[in-house]
Amino acid sequence: MPIKEMRIARGDEKAFLVLKNCQVVNVLNGQIEHGDIAIENGLIVGVGSYEGKLELDLEGKYVCPGFIDGHVHIESSMLTPSQFSKLVMPLGTTSVIADPHEIANVCGIAGIEYMLEASEETPMDVYIMLPSCVPSTEFEVAGAVLLAEDLQGLIDHKKVLGLGEMMNYPGVIQGNAMVHAKLDMMKDRNIDGHAPRVTGKDLNAYISAGVQTDHECTTKEELLEKVGKGMYVHLREGSATRNLDILLGGVTDANSRRLMFCTDDKQPMDILYEGHIDHNVRRAIELGLSPITAIQMASLNTAECYGLRKKGAIAPGYEADLLVLSDLEKVQIDQVYKKGILVADDGEALFEVDPLKDTRVLDTVKIDQVDQINLDINIESGIAKVIGLIDHEIITTSVVRKVDVVNGKFVHNDKLDLLKLAVIERHKGTGNVGLGLVEGYGLRHGAIGLTIAHDSHNIIVIGDNDEDMRLAAQTLKDHTGGMCICMEGEVLDSLQLEVGGLMTDAPLMEVVERIEDMNRLAIDMGVNKNIEPFMTLAFLALPVIPELKLTDKGLFDVTKFSLVDINA
Amino acid sequence: MPIKEMRIARGDEKAFLVLKNCQVVNVLNGQIEHGDIAIENGLIVGVGSYEGKLELDLEGKYVCPGFIDGHVHIESSMLTPSQFSKLVMPLGTTSVIADPHEIANVCGIAGIEYMLEASEETPMDVYIMLPSCVPSTEFEVAGAVLLAEDLQGLIDHKKVLGLGEMMNYPGVIQGNAMVHAKLDMMKDRNIDGHAPRVTGKDLNAYISAGVQTDHECTTKEELLEKVGKGMYVHLREGSATRNLDILLGGVTDANSRRLMFCTDDKQPMDILYEGHIDHNVRRAIELGLSPITAIQMASLNTAECYGLRKKGAIAPGYEADLLVLSDLEKVQIDQVYKKGILVADDGEALFEVDPLKDTRVLDTVKIDQVDQINLDINIESGIAKVIGLIDHEIITTSVVRKVDVVNGKFVHNDKLDLLKLAVIERHKGTGNVGLGLVEGYGLRHGAIGLTIAHDSHNIIVIGDNDEDMRLAAQTLKDHTGGMCICMEGEVLDSLQLEVGGLMTDAPLMEVVERIEDMNRLAIDMGVNKNIEPFMTLAFLALPVIPELKLTDKGLFDVTKFSLVDINA
Repeated sequence: MPIKEMRIARGDEKAFLVLKNCQVVNVLNGQIEHGDIAIENGLIVGVGSYEGKLELDLEGKYVCPGFIDGHVHIESSMLTPSQFSKLVMPLGTTSVIADPHEIANVCGIAGIEYMLEASEETPMDVYIMLPSCVPSTEFEVAGAVLLAEDLQGLIDHKKVLGLGEMMNYPGVIQGNAMVHAKLDMMKDRNIDGHAPRVTGKDLNAYISAGVQTDHECTTKEELLEKVGKGMYVHLREGSATRNLDILLGGVTDANSRRLMFCTDDKQPMDILYEGHIDHNVRRAIELGLSPITAIQMASLNTAECYGLRKKGAIAPGYEADLLVLSDLEKVQIDQVYKKGILVADDGEALFEVDPLKDTRVLDTVKIDQVDQINLDINIESGIAKVIGLIDHEIITTSVVRKVDVVNGKFVHNDKLDLLKLAVIERHKGTGNVGLGLVEGYGLRHGAIGLTIAHDSHNIIVIGDNDEDMRLAAQTLKDHTGGMCICMEGEVLDSLQLEVGGLMTDAPLMEVVERIEDMNRLAIDMGVNKNIEPFMTLAFLALPVIPELKLTDKGLFDVTKFSLVDINA
Repeated sequence: MPIKEMRIARGDEKAFLVLKNCQVVNVLNGQIEHGDIAIENGLIVGVGSYEGKLELDLEGKYVCPGFIDGHVHIESSMLTPSQFSKLVMPLGTTSVIADPHEIANVCGIAGIEYMLEASEETPMDVYIMLPSCVPSTEFEVAGAVLLAEDLQGLIDHKKVLGLGEMMNYPGVIQGNAMVHAKLDMMKDRNIDGHAPRVTGKDLNAYISAGVQTDHECTTKEELLEKVGKGMYVHLREGSATRNLDILLGGVTDANSRRLMFCTDDKQPMDILYEGHIDHNVRRAIELGLSPITAIQMASLNTAECYGLRKKGAIAPGYEADLLVLSDLEKVQIDQVYKKGILVADDGEALFEVDPLKDTRVLDTVKIDQVDQINLDINIESGIAKVIGLIDHEIITTSVVRKVDVVNGKFVHNDKLDLLKLAVIERHKGTGNVGLGLVEGYGLRHGAIGLTIAHDSHNIIVIGDNDEDMRLAAQTLKDHTGGMCICMEGEVLDSLQLEVGGLMTDAPLMEVVERIEDMNRLAIDMGVNKNIEPFMTLAFLALPVIPELKLTDKGLFDVTKFSLVDINA
C-alpha cells in the first residue's frame, strides 16, 4: 500500500471519497456502527470520522458489503458476462464465483478464456472455478474433453480460484483415476462440490478427496451433515432449484459462518423480476434470520471460503464494494459502489461495456446438410420406451407406449401426446443424431428447438413433423445458436444466442421480451403450462439426471447408466 | 488423495487406526457427537461407525482437535524446538505459529534456518512467520540487519506462512519505506501485527497496510475495536503478559470466530507448572466460555486465520491432530495424537529427538579481552539519570539521583540501591559497552549476567563491582551463552544456553532446576522479591518499551526515542 494511503487513513490528508453519516453493517462483529467510510484507490482506508475531496452525506442510510454469488453459471442467464453484470450489479452483486462449464462444453479452454476476458471488461469481479466435468459423461459428444492437463495452463490465472463443481461424485468416491488426477492437481486450491443426497461414508470419502463446498443440499439434515463434516454449504435459490426456504431451517448461530448464498442457474426473467443474491438475503430475513447474519452469508463467509481476503467486509484494507440501503430488512438497494466507484443507482447500471468479439466462441453450430438429416425412428415392435415428462420437474420417467408404425418407422398420431425428439451433434461434425419420443410436452403442431442442451449443448429439437424439425435445426445453424419456434415451414419466433449458442450480447430487455413472447407462443401452440417450453427441453439431454434421457448417441437410461434401445 | 483412502472412507477397507466410541468435539458446528474416528496415513477419513486394523475403545472420552499456539517465540522457553515440543505436546499443543525473532537478532537468516531445520526433527508442526523487525531499532547493534531482500529467499519455504509481528508500528503508520517494502513483499501472505494501544485512525492506517492480527490487546475495548476492524486477535497469556482474564470479557458469539489463543513469551517453569495453550483454554472455560468455543479458539480459528486448511477440526480430510480428554471442562488431556501417531500419554512425550548441531548458531558470544573492558562511568556533575525499576513490570521510569563520584567516575555506595549496568556488544566485535545505573534491583554484592537481552541479545550484566561484572561476562563467553551469578571472583551458579546464547538442548528439568536455584540465590543475595532477577534484566536493553533503557550504544530515552547522556 502506498505511503499516501497511510496519510489518508491517519486523517492527515483528505480521502478521494468519503461516505459520511453511514450506518455501517459490520459483519466482522455483528454490529451496526455509525460512522464515515473513507475510500482511496478503491480500498476502504478507515471507518470513523473522515474528510474527503468528495463527500456524500448518506443521512444515516445503511451501508453493507457487496454481495457475492458463491456459485453461478453465468451462461444460464443467457447473457454474456458484460450484460450479466449490468443486470446483477444494480441488485447488489459485486462479485461472483463462476463455473463456466456450459461454454467449456461447447468451446473447451477457449470458452473459459473467453469468460475470463469478457469479464475483465466489466466492473464486476468474476472469479472462475475451472470446470471439472467436461463432458458430463462419455455417452455424448461435447465440443471438448477437458482433462487435468488441459486445465493446467489456467490454474495460475489471477481470477482462477480452483476446481469447479465435481459433479462426478461417483467417480470421486469410487476412486476414478482421471477424476482424482484433477483433484490432486488442485489440492492446494479451492475445490467445489456437487453431491446431491450424498451422505454418510460416501460423503466422508467425497470430502476426504478434498472437496470443500456443496450447493446441492435440498434438506436441512443434508446441510447439517455437510457443515458438520467441514464443508462450506451454499444455500441455493435458482430458477428451477428453490432450496432456500427449507435450508434456512438449518442455520444456527454455531454453523452460519460456514454457510453462504448462491443462485447456480437463474434465468434472466427470474433475476429481473425477483432478484439475484439480494433475493436470497431478503428471503432469509423474511424467514427470521437476522439481517446481519444474512448479509454475512452473502459476503464475508463466501469471501473466507474462497480465500478472497480483501472482500466481504467494511473495514480498513478491504475493497470498497459497498451497497447503500434505504431499508435494511427489505434489502432496498439505492446505490452500489464497486472498488469505490458508483456503478449503479436506483436499480440502473451506470456503466457501458463494449462486447468482446471472440471468434473462438462465435459460429459454434457446426452441422452440414440439414435437409438430409434422417429423423426416422425404427420401432419394429411398435412398442417404445418413451421419455415421460413430470410437471415442474427436470427429472423424467421411463414409460412404455404402443406407437403407430408404418414400414417399421414411427409416425405421429394427432390423438396422442407423443412427439419426436432429436439431439443433433453440433460440435465435431460426427453426424450423430439421437432420436427418441416424449410424452407430456403437449405441442400440437410444429417444432421447437434450441442450442442449450445440458451439458454438451448439442441441438435439441422437438416436433410433430420432420420438416419443421429440420427447419428449426437450420434456423439455429443460421443464427449461430439460440432458440426458435417453427410451424409449417415458417420460423414464427426466435432468439439468437450467438456466443457458443448459449449467450448473447443483446440487451437484457430484448432477451427477456423474446423469451416471454416465445414462451407464450409455445403455450398457445399447446405446450403443457406446467413445464417451461425451452428449459424443459434443455435438460432432456442431461444424462446424469434420472430417468430416461436422450443424447446425440441415443436414448440413455440414467438408472442403468447406459445407452438403451428404443424398442421396449 | 490415493484411491485406497477412498475405500477406507467408504468403509470397504479397514483403516489403519480407529478411535472407537469417542465424544467428538466438533468445532465446525458446535456440537458434541458420538462416533468412531477413522485415521489413515495421518488424516481423518471419516467420523461415524468404522473398523480399523488397530482399534482403541475410548469408552466415551472426549476427543478434540490439537491446540495451536497462534503466536510464540520458542526462544522464550530457553529450549530448542525439539525440547520445547517435548514440553508442550503432552499439554496438547500440536502446532505453533512461531516468530523466531530472538535467534534472528543473533544469527540472522541462519538463525531462522536453524529453527526451521530443528523443527523438522520433531513431530510438532512449527510454522514460521519471518521476523519483520531485526533489529528492533537502529540504536543498538544486533547480530544481523534483515531487510526485505534478506527475507526473500525464505518466503516460499513450506513452513513459512508470512511476516512476523510488525513491531515497528510507528514506521508502518508513518509510511517508512523500508518497513513498507517488507509489507509489500508479503502482501499476499499472512502478516502479524503488534500494536499495543494503537487505536482510531492510527489503527486504521496500520490495518490498511495489510496487518491482519494483533496479540497486544490489554483491554476489552482494544480487542473489540481491533476485531471490528477486521483483525484476528490473539488472547495472550504469557509469563509476563497476563491478558487473558480481561480479554475474555470481550468475547461474544458474534466475534469469537476471529479470536484465538497465544502464549507469545512463556518461560519453561510457567509452562511446566501452569500449562501452555491448554491453560488458556482451561482458564477461558473457568471464566464462563463454553468449552466448544474455547477449543474452537485454540484450533479452528487459528487454522483459518493462518490458512492451515487441513488443521483445526475433526472431519474428513483434516490431519489427525487429536487430544483425548478425560474431562472436558478441566481440559484433562490423557493422550495426544499427531497425524495419527500417539506422541504423548498421560503427560509424557513418547518421542525422542536428536539435537540438531548447527555451528551457525553455536559459539555466538564474540567478545575479546574481557579483562580489559572499561566499566568506568563518567559523571562529572555527580547528578545522574538512573533507570528506575517498577515491581512486576518491564517498563521503567527515568529518575534523577545524586551519586558518589571519585575522580569524575561513579563509585558504588553500600547504603544506596544503585547498581552499575553494562550492555556489552557480543556479535560484531565493535567493542561497544553501554553503561548505566539502576535503582530498585536490590543486589547487595556480586554480579548477575545473561546473554538474553531483548531484542539484540547482547550481554547484560549488573553488579556492585567491576571485577565480578567482568567475571560474569567472561563466564558467559566461556559458556557460549547463558546466565550466571558471580561473587568475589567465584561463579556461584550458571546455566548454559549454547544455541545463540538463548536456548539449550538440555532436558527441561535440568533447565528448570538451574533457573529456580539461581532465582533463589539471587533473592538470597538481596534481589528485590517483586521482580524476576534475570528476566527483568533481559528487558532492560529493549529500546521500544518505556522509559529509560540501556543498549550497547548507551542510555536510551524511549519517550524521546534517542540516546541520552547519563549526566542529568
